[in-house]
Amino acid sequence: MADKKKRRRPEPNSDDETQLPFKKSLKPDSLILKSLEDLTNSLRSTTSSSSSSKTLTLADLSLSSSCREVTDLTLSSVQSSIESLILRLAHSILSGNGFSFDVPSRSAVNQLYVPELDRIVLKDKTSLRPYANISTVRKSTVTTRILQLIHQLCIKNIHVTKRDLFYTDVKLFQDQTQSDSVLDDVSCMLGCTRSSLNVVAAEKGVVVGRLIFSDNGDMIDCTKMGMGGKAIPPNIDRVGDMQSDALFILLVEKDAAYMRLAEDRFYNRFPCIIVTAKGQPDVATRLFLRKMKMELKLPVLALVDSDPYGLKILSVYGCGSKNMSYDSANLTTPDIKWLGIRPSDLDKYKIPEQCRLPMTEQDIKTGKDLLEEDFVKKNPGWVEELTLMVKTKQKAEIQALSSFGFQYLSEVYLPLKLQQKDWL
Amino acid sequence: MADKKKRRRPEPNSDDETQLPFKKSLKPDSLILKSLEDLTNSLRSTTSSSSSSKTLTLADLSLSSSCREVTDLTLSSVQSSIESLILRLAHSILSGNGFSFDVPSRSAVNQLYVPELDRIVLKDKTSLRPYANISTVRKSTVTTRILQLIHQLCIKNIHVTKRDLFYTDVKLFQDQTQSDSVLDDVSCMLGCTRSSLNVVAAEKGVVVGRLIFSDNGDMIDCTKMGMGGKAIPPNIDRVGDMQSDALFILLVEKDAAYMRLAEDRFYNRFPCIIVTAKGQPDVATRLFLRKMKMELKLPVLALVDSDPYGLKILSVYGCGSKNMSYDSANLTTPDIKWLGIRPSDLDKYKIPEQCRLPMTEQDIKTGKDLLEEDFVKKNPGWVEELTLMVKTKQKAEIQALSSFGFQYLSEVYLPLKLQQKDWL
Repeated sequence: MADKKKRRRPEPNSDDETQLPFKKSLKPDSLILKSLEDLTNSLRSTTSSSSSSKTLTLADLSLSSSCREVTDLTLSSVQSSIESLILRLAHSILSGNGFSFDVPSRSAVNQLYVPELDRIVLKDKTSLRPYANISTVRKSTVTTRILQLIHQLCIKNIHVTKRDLFYTDVKLFQDQTQSDSVLDDVSCMLGCTRSSLNVVAAEKGVVVGRLIFSDNGDMIDCTKMGMGGKAIPPNIDRVGDMQSDALFILLVEKDAAYMRLAEDRFYNRFPCIIVTAKGQPDVATRLFLRKMKMELKLPVLALVDSDPYGLKILSVYGCGSKNMSYDSANLTTPDIKWLGIRPSDLDKYKIPEQCRLPMTEQDIKTGKDLLEEDFVKKNPGWVEELTLMVKTKQKAEIQALSSFGFQYLSEVYLPLKLQQKDWL
Repeated sequence: MADKKKRRRPEPNSDDETQLPFKKSLKPDSLILKSLEDLTNSLRSTTSSSSSSKTLTLADLSLSSSCREVTDLTLSSVQSSIESLILRLAHSILSGNGFSFDVPSRSAVNQLYVPELDRIVLKDKTSLRPYANISTVRKSTVTTRILQLIHQLCIKNIHVTKRDLFYTDVKLFQDQTQSDSVLDDVSCMLGCTRSSLNVVAAEKGVVVGRLIFSDNGDMIDCTKMGMGGKAIPPNIDRVGDMQSDALFILLVEKDAAYMRLAEDRFYNRFPCIIVTAKGQPDVATRLFLRKMKMELKLPVLALVDSDPYGLKILSVYGCGSKNMSYDSANLTTPDIKWLGIRPSDLDKYKIPEQCRLPMTEQDIKTGKDLLEEDFVKKNPGWVEELTLMVKTKQKAEIQALSSFGFQYLSEVYLPLKLQQKDWL
């Protein structure tokens, strides 16, 4: 297209600019920035500067015996632990006892939310998976095969997807859910993260803004990634050298909002890093967010829809998902703030009725279930907001702000939120 | 993770390397590269160097009167054509005739495949959408509202998603399919592409390899995008300055295969640009691919699953989708070659039985339907392959090659395909 001229922020007296609600309450950016700097500095001073991950561990709570967690292992140690495991099996076979795997249970009953850690962890229940048993012979065969494939990956030091893994032996695995679930079993058995196994999920997230990092040896400057942004790498172990002059990380649920902020280069007006997984958080984005938080020590502010799923998504970033609880230590980002859109914002920001949607029965049920979750209970502000949502039976997406003009989000709503430090 | 050492191609005498089928038939890369260079040069010499888009047009076929196509318009011309349209409506209202829109029909009966163009185009049938008619009053109101919103976008010169558009008036639009479909109507009415309206689809595609381009003013070097690659920008009008020393474009259906090639940096061994939309082609990726093909004049080789949907996806890139046929000239990339995985490859490359999947009834039906499609018929090679697929009732995904080792795709299959110029 010929029209190449860059967009400018609209002139003060341009059309709908004058009647934008709350535009008047905005202080000059300089003042807002000052208060944000104080916030970031206080956060940095509180968190120990020596180690980036000086957070409570299971050991600190003397839970390490009763709970199970995995850690990042180097490829070589994964390789050797597979080899010693197989050696043990061989011995057991030679001594005439056949062989069986001792597999940690990942069932719901084996899950535990630890308030002190503010995340879900896996308890220590395990179950035997003997080869010489009609009910488990298939699964123990699959387990052996997965171990062999992972061993190959270690030797070659390459990454593959769960799908690749499945396709190396379709006849045995039958469908991918089987190889996927055994893959998680293997992570637990070896006590290492899935990324340590060099099996990665397909990437989904993108990042843009005041961040420089290395992806597989290439230095990436996320202020020079245009509107598209940088695709978050699937393999966190090749990500490093993070540098940033940002004052906060803006975690966005939807890519529409991400796009708006990227095009308006919001991160130039308020130095920040903008990241989104485009809906449900994927492992790569969760690992990337945690790494940013830990290494850069920045506050994380979440911009999600005002519905139960928005809060659910926030919680997955914050304290993990049940089916990967064994890895919650590496996948979760502590202390994420709920910036918006919050149920109380709907009236506060006069979101027009037509942009609010009635909650379905399912929505309301999900909302009520969330109110029972510990990670919500421990935050009175969240309980209050969620209660309001369930009471009013109204929800709204981030895009609802578009009813005040497409740029209301980046020009009024977010700046005002930052100015008022209005997060929970 | 501590283990940071880069992966090397496995040593010749490493484990499963020796028994890789066809590894022996591989010539030295230098010879393969030479023949690829000849190919690219011949392509460049045939396509006129003056204009990049010297392809047949509807006018050349004197179809411009009976068929309708949209073109890229500058924001200012979109704005003025909206204003003159509204002016005409006002006149008609003042002269007591009320108003109605003359909307091009996008129904299947109004679609036409033009072999000379090798793409689907829209015929010239239109239907009236009067305001003063109970059956059309809603839709004409929606049309007016959409026109007004697009007019705003023109003035501000910003981009929004279809979702944003929907949310500016939920009560009127009711659900997004309504605002989406009227948006397409408006494109046809104004005779411009949807991207000319500054309404963009959420980005999905990624690109990596021997390409440098500018995204919203930032220069992007896709050889320095690590394993994650660069997210393809949602707004093609901010993309430009494409430079490349690649010999071909590798269009990949799935992101798993994309990841394998990105990690192995396949584009360093065989200079190419690797692009994927991660499944169904989205508009942004289709526009990006066409722009690359037109400006860089490179052959496009497609790596898709060996099933009817793989070919279907190839066809969407190649000759467009029915529901956006009015924009096929801008969305389609001419002369895409079917590299693989082709039905004949299954036996040729000895894909193990367990990695082939039986086609479902639906698969077979889709396959047979495709055989009736003109874009397949015009390519005897494709007909032959598709017939074989339907006959053997077998399909296979790209990942099926993983059964020979995770890197068989990048180390043997693709190099051999290139060496043998084995595409259709």
